[in-house]
Parts: sequence; C-alpha cells; structure tokens
Amino acid sequence: MNSPKSRTKLAAIALLAITGGWAATSLLSTTQMTAFAASEKTGPEVTSFFLENGLQVVVIPDRRAPVVTHMIWYRAGSADEPPGKSGIAHYLEHLMFKGTKTTKNGEFSSRVAAIGGQENAFTSTDYTGYFQRVTPEALEDMMTLEADRMENLVLTNEIIIPERDVVQEERNARTESNPGSLLREAMAAALYQNHPYGIPIIGWQHEVNALDKDDAIAFYDKFYTPNNAIVVVAGDVDVETVRRLSKKTYGVVKRRAEPGTRKRPTEPPPRAARRIDMADARVRTPSFQRLYLVPSYNSDQDGEAEALEILGELLGGGSTSRLYKSLVIEQKLATSAGSWYQGGSLDDTQFGFYGSPRGDVTLAALEEATEKEIAKLLKDGVTEAEVKRTQSRLIKQSTFSQDSQSSLARIYGGSLMLGLTIEDIESWPDRIRAVTVESVNKAAKTYLQKKRSVTGFLTPETHTHGKEG
Amino acid sequence: MNSPKSRTKLAAIALLAITGGWAATSLLSTTQMTAFAASEKTGPEVTSFFLENGLQVVVIPDRRAPVVTHMIWYRAGSADEPPGKSGIAHYLEHLMFKGTKTTKNGEFSSRVAAIGGQENAFTSTDYTGYFQRVTPEALEDMMTLEADRMENLVLTNEIIIPERDVVQEERNARTESNPGSLLREAMAAALYQNHPYGIPIIGWQHEVNALDKDDAIAFYDKFYTPNNAIVVVAGDVDVETVRRLSKKTYGVVKRRAEPGTRKRPTEPPPRAARRIDMADARVRTPSFQRLYLVPSYNSDQDGEAEALEILGELLGGGSTSRLYKSLVIEQKLATSAGSWYQGGSLDDTQFGFYGSPRGDVTLAALEEATEKEIAKLLKDGVTEAEVKRTQSRLIKQSTFSQDSQSSLARIYGGSLMLGLTIEDIESWPDRIRAVTVESVNKAAKTYLQKKRSVTGFLTPETHTHGKEG
Repeated sequence: MNSPKSRTKLAAIALLAITGGWAATSLLSTTQMTAFAASEKTGPEVTSFFLENGLQVVVIPDRRAPVVTHMIWYRAGSADEPPGKSGIAHYLEHLMFKGTKTTKNGEFSSRVAAIGGQENAFTSTDYTGYFQRVTPEALEDMMTLEADRMENLVLTNEIIIPERDVVQEERNARTESNPGSLLREAMAAALYQNHPYGIPIIGWQHEVNALDKDDAIAFYDKFYTPNNAIVVVAGDVDVETVRRLSKKTYGVVKRRAEPGTRKRPTEPPPRAARRIDMADARVRTPSFQRLYLVPSYNSDQDGEAEALEILGELLGGGSTSRLYKSLVIEQKLATSAGSWYQGGSLDDTQFGFYGSPRGDVTLAALEEATEKEIAKLLKDGVTEAEVKRTQSRLIKQSTFSQDSQSSLARIYGGSLMLGLTIEDIESWPDRIRAVTVESVNKAAKTYLQKKRSVTGFLTPETHTHGKEG
Repeated sequence: MNSPKSRTKLAAIALLAITGGWAATSLLSTTQMTAFAASEKTGPEVTSFFLENGLQVVVIPDRRAPVVTHMIWYRAGSADEPPGKSGIAHYLEHLMFKGTKTTKNGEFSSRVAAIGGQENAFTSTDYTGYFQRVTPEALEDMMTLEADRMENLVLTNEIIIPERDVVQEERNARTESNPGSLLREAMAAALYQNHPYGIPIIGWQHEVNALDKDDAIAFYDKFYTPNNAIVVVAGDVDVETVRRLSKKTYGVVKRRAEPGTRKRPTEPPPRAARRIDMADARVRTPSFQRLYLVPSYNSDQDGEAEALEILGELLGGGSTSRLYKSLVIEQKLATSAGSWYQGGSLDDTQFGFYGSPRGDVTLAALEEATEKEIAKLLKDGVTEAEVKRTQSRLIKQSTFSQDSQSSLARIYGGSLMLGLTIEDIESWPDRIRAVTVESVNKAAKTYLQKKRSVTGFLTPETHTHGKEG
C-alpha cells in the first residue's frame, strides 16, 4: 500500500493532518479539526461533479489496494447551531446511527462491521462528517445506507434520551475530568466575544441536558439535505462507477431545505488582552497558553493565512523552532514551548503559544520569556533563510498524508467544507513557496498584538486566604 | 407637587432608581437599567388590567399636579436580538419616530412638543420603552399615536440609512471615544460566556453598520405586538378613563405575533477568573473594576437577590460602607472604592466592585486590598448591626422615587418587564427587612468566588518593548 511508486503518483500534501485516531465517534477539537491539503501537479486526478439535487461528489482514485473510503460531509457544525442549543450538531451525529424508516437502531454499524469495514463520524465547528472504509464491492451498500439516513431518520424518545447520557459521558470524559480542556473551553469563550466558535463543540453541559427530539429533528431538517453535503470517494474505484452509483443512491434523495450562505456573527475589533488563571487540584504540570485571534485560510486576505502558517512553524513548530531553542534548550526555562496556527476554519481562527515551565520556574517567567521572543520577532523580523527552511519543512511534512487514503479523503472533504476549492488545495505548495519575509513580518505585526489575545495559566490548586485569592 | 400630604400617600419605594437624565433617546447601561420598587401598604392604589388583544395596562393615580406620564414597554431588548444583528433593538427604537401610514417622519415628536410635552425612549438588554409626559387632556392623543406606530410603522431606505449614521455617532460618543466604556464592554463580553448580555446594547459597530430595513421590520414584526407590551399611565387620571381610552386606541390593534416565553441561552458554570488589562492614551485616572456573575431578582432562589442587595450596599454603598472606610479613609489607598448589585434583569446579572488608586498606589495594590476585604467578609461574615443599618438605609433611600411620577411609572413598568409582579414590587420592603445575617453570608460565599469573576484594569497607555508587552 505504500510502495515508492504509488507515493510519487500521490504527492498530495497535507497540512495539519489530523493526528487523532479514529475513535468510535470523534469530536474534533479546534486544533484537530483542520484538514487542508495540496497536491503537486503529479498528484491524484481528482474529479468533482454535482447531482441534480445539488449534492457534490468528489472522486480521488487510489489504486494501491482494493479499498475505498466513502465519506459524506454536511455543512453543519457547532457554529451553525441555534442559540441555546449548543451540542445539537454533535448529538445529532450520534443519533444518525439510531435507525431509519427501513433500518433498525444500530443496524448501520452492524452492517459495516459484518463486511469487515471500519467506520467513524466526527463533528467540528464547521461541519459534520461520516466515514466508512470498505472493499469496493460494498460501496453501493454504503451509499444506499447514507442516502437513506439523509432523509429517513427516525427518532423516538426511547432512543434519544439514553443517547444523551452517552453524549454527557463523553463530555465528562473529555472535558469535565480534564482541567486542561476546561481551560481551553474558557479561553475560547473569552477569545470569541461574538462569534459562536466561543461555544464548545460538544456543547455546554446544561444545554446538552435540555436537548430533545424536536431540537435534533429541526437541525436535521435544516442541514441534512443533498445540496448541503459533499460525498468524497477515495480508493480503488473509477469515476464512472462512482457517478453511476451516486446517481442511483444519493440521486433519489429530495432537496429538503435551502440552508443558504453560511454567515455567523463576526468578531468586533479586539480591545484588550484577556487572562484566565485556572487552579485545579488535578493539575500535575503547570502550563501556559496564549491564543490570538487571526484570519483563517477562508477568511484571510492576500495570503495572510500562508504567512501565518510559516510564522507558526518558524516560531514554534518542533525542536528547531525559535521558541524551543530559546526557552527549552538555551534558557532552560521550559520543558516544552511552541506555537501553532490553526488555519482550517470558515471564520477567524486561532494562533497559539504554549509552554510548561521547568522545575521552579514560574508561569509568569515563562510568559515573559515567550513575550520577549515575540517582541524580538516584531522588532527584528524573520530572516530569508528561516523562511526558506520553513517553507521546505512544511511542504515536506505535508507529504505524510499521501500514505493514507482516509487522510486524503478527509483533506479534500474538509477543505471544501471550509469554502476552499480543489484548486486552492492543489496550489497550496506554490502559495507556501510564494510567502516572503515581508509578508511574514507584516502578518506578525498585524496579528500578534496583545489586545487580540487571551492568556491562560493552569496551576495546581493553591489555598490562600479563604475562597477568594 | 411634593406636598407632605401626597408624599405619605405615595410611599412608593424605588430601589436603584434611574439616575441618568432623560436624553433625547437613551440607551440604558447595565447599571442604569434597573427599575425595581416597592410601595408600603400606604402606597398608591395601582390597578392593572388586560385588553382582549393581550395588552396589559397599569394605572398609578397621582393627583399632585395636572400631569400624566404615559409609557409603553415592549418585552424586546438587546438580549432578544437574533445572532449577528446586535443593535437592532436600539436602532428600531430610533426608527419608531420615523413615521407611519398616517404620520410623517418626525411628526410624533413635533406633536408632543407642540403641546408642551416631554418625551423619551430607551433600550435595555430586556426591554424597549417609550415615554411621554403631557397634560391629562393630551393622553388620548398620545395613546392614539403609540397605538398607530405599534402596527403601522413605515420604513424606507431614504430614512433608515441616515438614522443608522446617527446611531453610529451615538456609539462613537458613548463608547468608542471612552476607554472606560470600551473596558466595560470587553468585561461584559468576558463575563458572559454564552448569554447575550455579553453583547453591548448599542451593538457591535461592525454589525450595526450592516443592519438594514429587513432586520428592523423583522424585529418589529416579531416583538411589537399588543400581547408583548405593557402600557403604564401614572398621574392625574382615573382608572375608568384610562380603561375607556386604552380600549378605544390600543384596543383596535391586532395581535400580530406570539413572541412566546423569553428564553435565552444560559451561562455554563464559571470555571476560572478572567482578567482584562486595557491601556489607552486617553485614560487620565487608572481604575479597577471587578464583576461577579450573580442571580437577578427574577433568576434567584430563596431571597438571594435581597441578600445580595444588602451585601452590595453594606460592602460598598457610599461613604459609610466597609470598602470606603477601609480603602479610602483608613488605608488611604484609593480616592474611590465601592461595590454594587444590579438586580434588575431577567437573567443572571452582575455584582460589581470598583476603585481608583490614590497617588502612586498601583492597581494591583488596590485590587489586593479589595480582595482582603472580601476575604475578611467571607471568613468572619457580616454583623447583625450592619445588616439592620443597611436594611434601614436601603428602605429610606428608596423613598426618593416617590417624588417623581415618571420614576414611579418607570419602576412599575420596568419591574413588570423583568418578570416580577405588582405584588413583588409592593412586598419589597418586607423582603428586605426579612434578610438575615445568615442569608447575606451565604450569598457572599456562594457568589463572591473568584472563578465567577472578571477583573478589569484601566491604565494610561505605556510603551514597553515593541507592540507586545
């Protein structure tokens, strides 16, 4: 499956490829949700077409093994939820496995398992996706099942109430029992003053508790319609077969709604830096985080996203980055330190810094050292050599994705969900190569302003005077 | 108008009476928006009835002078706006003066002025109100005009676009040019992680810029319906006259919509304290603010609001309060220091602390001293004598409102808008008298937890290393 020959043919480039494994169902955190890719001119011959009902179908041939990856993506994420109904996108994702007019609760998954397939589903701020990996003969069955649950979902309170407990358990395991997650949730809520990205994908616990069948059906009826979805088929299959099968299965699904343009409340200009100190007895290692509000690949102008991509990597990507060399190796203040740019979202997104202090070093000292690196960067700028090295590293890193058919499918589907085109995906290496020293310096000066930021300190609980302090 | 005789008959008690004057149109900030009152058993004979279309009418006789105050209140404030349309409630308030099917742009105001009347309008997070003060003979005309614009508003782009500039100028004057307002806006956005109280009443500038006729009409059609409004008539008029006139005027307005229960997204449990440092060259006096998320008179349980009312006054209301005595008089750290409780809102609200340092005292030192007072309170509690003095002071303070007919009308209208009943208003002094040392201590321990708070520092701009710092 990974022969050198097919590798060169499949020089698709994945940026920020999804690193999390495929859990039973997964919830994509902000840093995981990006799927952005570009293929060299020698990359896969990607084909895209539309059915009459508005469904887009993308075909990515990959003949390395007799396997196909079938994904359906809906333009419906947590940022599309109605106010007060946080978590409904993710809850509905769970409920999509609960049976239709012709299939029973759990039948979808048991049929995939019966043929030795793998499956998964995931919800992000901007989309919800469903995935199966099967042999080519099973593709038609998968399409039939997905097309069926796009319009024939049947929900009863008997099914829906216990599943809400499952979702709450998921929240307990991922968030409530994890101080780091609670801090990230609070930081996102502080970073976004108006935009729904400030609301957690899994939902606020008290709102999830109140979600009911009507909420799920309303969200389903509004967004689960062929003209709001993209099917991606990657693997050992030809375009004509996919066209014929998708017409036969998805083609008969009626256009049920017109979700229209995706327009969320946008952020006001940030006025002042915000800080959050979270103390929790469960914390073993103190840590420092900072988020800045920055444009995404979709919301930026004039290549700002590509410049921020270089900046995040140059400043804090791995052990050759400025922050790691300065804070961890030279000053020995930190056991980890870095920065990242999360460009894959529809609307304005996050540029982050993080670090854990070494020994008795305080978080304040670590923050100060990080700020000094930022100040130095803003004053002196980056060098031509640094930019060149980073461009080359990013483009090389992205070749990792070519090994995985599902990553490839995910990169195309995810990028299209975020308002990008197939051309955008394919021209990404060229655009990364075109980033200049000036554009990196300009992006840094424009966006790494403290008033655009939220700083978080996570510490073990301390007991001072009373409850206050 | 203020004879001792009528005073004793009108022993209405206003708590947190509106202190701002009546500007041409006013926007009520959080601390100004409260209207809560109680009348002693000797107070005015307040009558309330409903018309068939659902409009509630409240009559407050006040025969001290030949004047009537006529107000209409709509259950529609900034917290009822659709996402992304911040400022539409206030913008519509402006547009309500722009003419109807039978009146011209500005005619409403010119007719009030022609008869020597006064008028005003105001928008808060929870309601929008319109007000005229005229002679009793003009009451029918006022009712006719208000009833007309409840259903016959006519908007054209010719009128609506220039008025949007007026609203923006209002925002410039009140917020953009005032660092203190910008900090309060940022603090509210950080305090409320999910509830729309985090969005400014006047709206985010970029969203106000995009509001159009369709937005205004949609908001008007949804909320400006008789079953969503309360008319308050205070003054030299009898109940039967008001009943007859309101049937004749408001009674013919059709029930145009069913706004239903007022249910906004609620807050998740606060997890960690937040901080905002705002530096601005226009700041002359540094200042410290802290907000805690607490229940309102409407959202509380078991008299918590009354206990918080006592707490706010006892800790920081005026020059005999704990904070003033300690920080200003004894320690000489501050030129001002205090605390307040803003109980008049539909949903969870704010308990605030503030202070300005004296001379070279830092904001951090002032904050620390304030925290020490809070810690002392949490550790040792309040005394019986303090609670008794505060109860007496609050009840006495509230008698100020009896001198003003418009305050009285406002107290009743505002309280009813916030989900309270006339009985709630009238029993307020009894409930304040019933507050115990234990209930104050419990409220302090429950709500003055730092994780429930946002702290703001406002300082003159300082130039450190680069833009960062």
